[in-house]
Amino acid sequence: MSARNGGGADTVEMRAREARLASRTLASLSGEIRTAALERVAVELARQGDRISESNATDCTRAEKEGLAAPLRKRLRFDGGKQLQAIAGVRSVAALADPVGRVLERRELDEGLILTRRTTPIGVVAMIFESRPDALVQIASLALKSGNAVVLKGGSEARDSNRVLASVIHDAACAAGAPPGWLQLIETREDVGRLLALDTYIDLVIPRGSNEFVRYIMDNTRIPVMGHADGICHLFLDRGAEPEMAVALTVDSKTQYVAVCNALETLLVHADAAPGLLPVVGEALRKKGVLLRGCPRTREILPGIDPADESDWATEYLDLLLAVRVVDSLDEAIAHINRWGSGHTDGIVTGDARRAERFLREVDSASVMWNSSTRFADGFRYGLGAEVGISTSRLHARGPVGVEGLLSYKWILTGRGHVVADYAEGGKVFTHRDLPGGDNEIL
Amino acid sequence: MSARNGGGADTVEMRAREARLASRTLASLSGEIRTAALERVAVELARQGDRISESNATDCTRAEKEGLAAPLRKRLRFDGGKQLQAIAGVRSVAALADPVGRVLERRELDEGLILTRRTTPIGVVAMIFESRPDALVQIASLALKSGNAVVLKGGSEARDSNRVLASVIHDAACAAGAPPGWLQLIETREDVGRLLALDTYIDLVIPRGSNEFVRYIMDNTRIPVMGHADGICHLFLDRGAEPEMAVALTVDSKTQYVAVCNALETLLVHADAAPGLLPVVGEALRKKGVLLRGCPRTREILPGIDPADESDWATEYLDLLLAVRVVDSLDEAIAHINRWGSGHTDGIVTGDARRAERFLREVDSASVMWNSSTRFADGFRYGLGAEVGISTSRLHARGPVGVEGLLSYKWILTGRGHVVADYAEGGKVFTHRDLPGGDNEIL
Repeated sequence: MSARNGGGADTVEMRAREARLASRTLASLSGEIRTAALERVAVELARQGDRISESNATDCTRAEKEGLAAPLRKRLRFDGGKQLQAIAGVRSVAALADPVGRVLERRELDEGLILTRRTTPIGVVAMIFESRPDALVQIASLALKSGNAVVLKGGSEARDSNRVLASVIHDAACAAGAPPGWLQLIETREDVGRLLALDTYIDLVIPRGSNEFVRYIMDNTRIPVMGHADGICHLFLDRGAEPEMAVALTVDSKTQYVAVCNALETLLVHADAAPGLLPVVGEALRKKGVLLRGCPRTREILPGIDPADESDWATEYLDLLLAVRVVDSLDEAIAHINRWGSGHTDGIVTGDARRAERFLREVDSASVMWNSSTRFADGFRYGLGAEVGISTSRLHARGPVGVEGLLSYKWILTGRGHVVADYAEGGKVFTHRDLPGGDNEIL
Repeated sequence: MSARNGGGADTVEMRAREARLASRTLASLSGEIRTAALERVAVELARQGDRISESNATDCTRAEKEGLAAPLRKRLRFDGGKQLQAIAGVRSVAALADPVGRVLERRELDEGLILTRRTTPIGVVAMIFESRPDALVQIASLALKSGNAVVLKGGSEARDSNRVLASVIHDAACAAGAPPGWLQLIETREDVGRLLALDTYIDLVIPRGSNEFVRYIMDNTRIPVMGHADGICHLFLDRGAEPEMAVALTVDSKTQYVAVCNALETLLVHADAAPGLLPVVGEALRKKGVLLRGCPRTREILPGIDPADESDWATEYLDLLLAVRVVDSLDEAIAHINRWGSGHTDGIVTGDARRAERFLREVDSASVMWNSSTRFADGFRYGLGAEVGISTSRLHARGPVGVEGLLSYKWILTGRGHVVADYAEGGKVFTHRDLPGGDNEIL
């Protein structure tokens, strides 16, 4: 038995249905089996390293022939060192505490009538990601750890690598007790389109890719989508902000890695601070190669820069470009962010705790920062152990999402023949007494 | 200033936008102000009782003229006694602990770099409910408590009552500091249709009503929907189930209140137990006026009943009707429920703890019961303090949903100028040390 791949409407539906069936078995496996399966995956990835390297070489050769840009070719490469890293990643996911069956609350409703709310897998998760083959290994590991079946769609450049990796991971897990079909691979954009219609089989879609691609997914499915389209992040340099800190945080937020969703895109500066701060901040950014676009008041202070208009407030550059606007007050900064931001990550640089508190409270974003870089908004840096993605939704998971984002829960009620009529008509009264949690055993 | 009502596309959009604006202010009010606003609401509902009674009399008179059925007219009535109950309900919501700003986790990422995850309101919640005016009072109270703006659509029979109640509640809360526009009322199905397109202003829709209506909502909006269409609940009488308990739980699950989503719709009986159990269970149900529809093997034991086919397995009767099927094994019972059920509430009656555990683990439903009635699946009985609805989704909230279902969270990071470059390139290492929770103050 191996992970299936291939396309067409019937095939995609068949594979989604297989994943749904497998998900039921997977959800009821013990944590020991899921962990053992992950360890087996790590062993097989190591044992079949040559086969994996060969498939990756095929992808890399094709990419070179087709003239793929050098940075993309670099991301595509999955050599011995990256394989070792990926295998270490699988082992670290295996070592995480079992997230499934955890007691979230437990309550005595009446004598002998005990209610327990426990985590469960969501069911079937579709993940759509980009070129790096390591992403497939990480996502499959997280799904297996959390008891979810997965349908994966990787970048077409990595087609051969993904096929081999999916097959090795699927088969290794099955050899350790995972149900056949728990991991499915699809390969074309057309098949993604078909998958998006299968809301009876797929519980959650997690797309990672360009803004346009994520937005296309969000606009074209009834399945819940976890993720974010834009990451238009702001930093507000308040009046009285310490210049050295203002410079350091602006430079780090903007330039530490420009092509990512938590990078700074618009800098807001309090009018009282602008004449003092903008020249030093501007100079520090210039040295890093950042081009500025400013509002009229910014350009009075930094006359050499390009003008910014409303379209800049709404743009995620993902490049060495930064929009700058001078605002008259904390209120105006908060209003700008809530109007133009994407609810991803926004920060304030200030020495005034009361003003910081207002900002943290009133800015309606998944992550809000005081005197720290927007670039910290990330599952690994937040200490979540692993990152599934970053969500700008207010439902389910918000901000950097760890393995918890792949979990749901169920309510389990155990009684001794208790009936509702006794409470509704018979005078019995609920005790509703909260109880300590207990272990991961159902009973 | 009063709660607005009235219709048309422009008006609905204007009101949704007003609710969004108000939601930002509401979300940053202190718990004290939200509680004081609820107390003011209780006072004003009492003070304006005559005005409320008059509007309700108008609705009741119109309902009688239009020949509305007696049970619906009874639900529409909002007399002195019901008003007192509703006011007591507002006061009990006011007395709940503040759900907003609660610390869900807190972690030191490094010295002086502290991450806190706190509950926040979701934002703007649209609730669509049926005829009872008391529902409006309860829903508005829960929204105010949790800091959410609301757009409400009540039953058209209760039009006059709803207008007065919305106006009294809105104005009373505003007098205590809530932002004008936090509560909006819309009145027609056409306006609901318009509302469903406004996903930039509305974060969550909670529909309560007929299966068809909920399904229509789910099929016609990109806004997340919390709720359930069907409640096809099962009870499985296992081999060796104690007859007295089997009878009591079947009768309570089916007949304690037939018109609700957690009432029993299909009874599954283990083949070994069927000859002994079905005659006594059938007789007890017959005495309660329940008509049975059975599979061929059920009809061998109870020859007088109507036949059931697959369409019965997929039907929520909400009536004195029960489908009955004999199954050969626990596996077959679980498979039937996962195939035909709606993931709402399903139970097993058995004396065998290991078989109970398999059922509780493998049945993929929001609530799973062992030796207790399906009718317990309810927010009040579960001890949630208040019920927003029951969800069969696996994302966000599942099963009976209390005020927590109206909450999201945000991540708050406070530092002293920390930058990511120091960790990525500079050799600094995260400590990732979990910290105790702390209080509801942001800083």
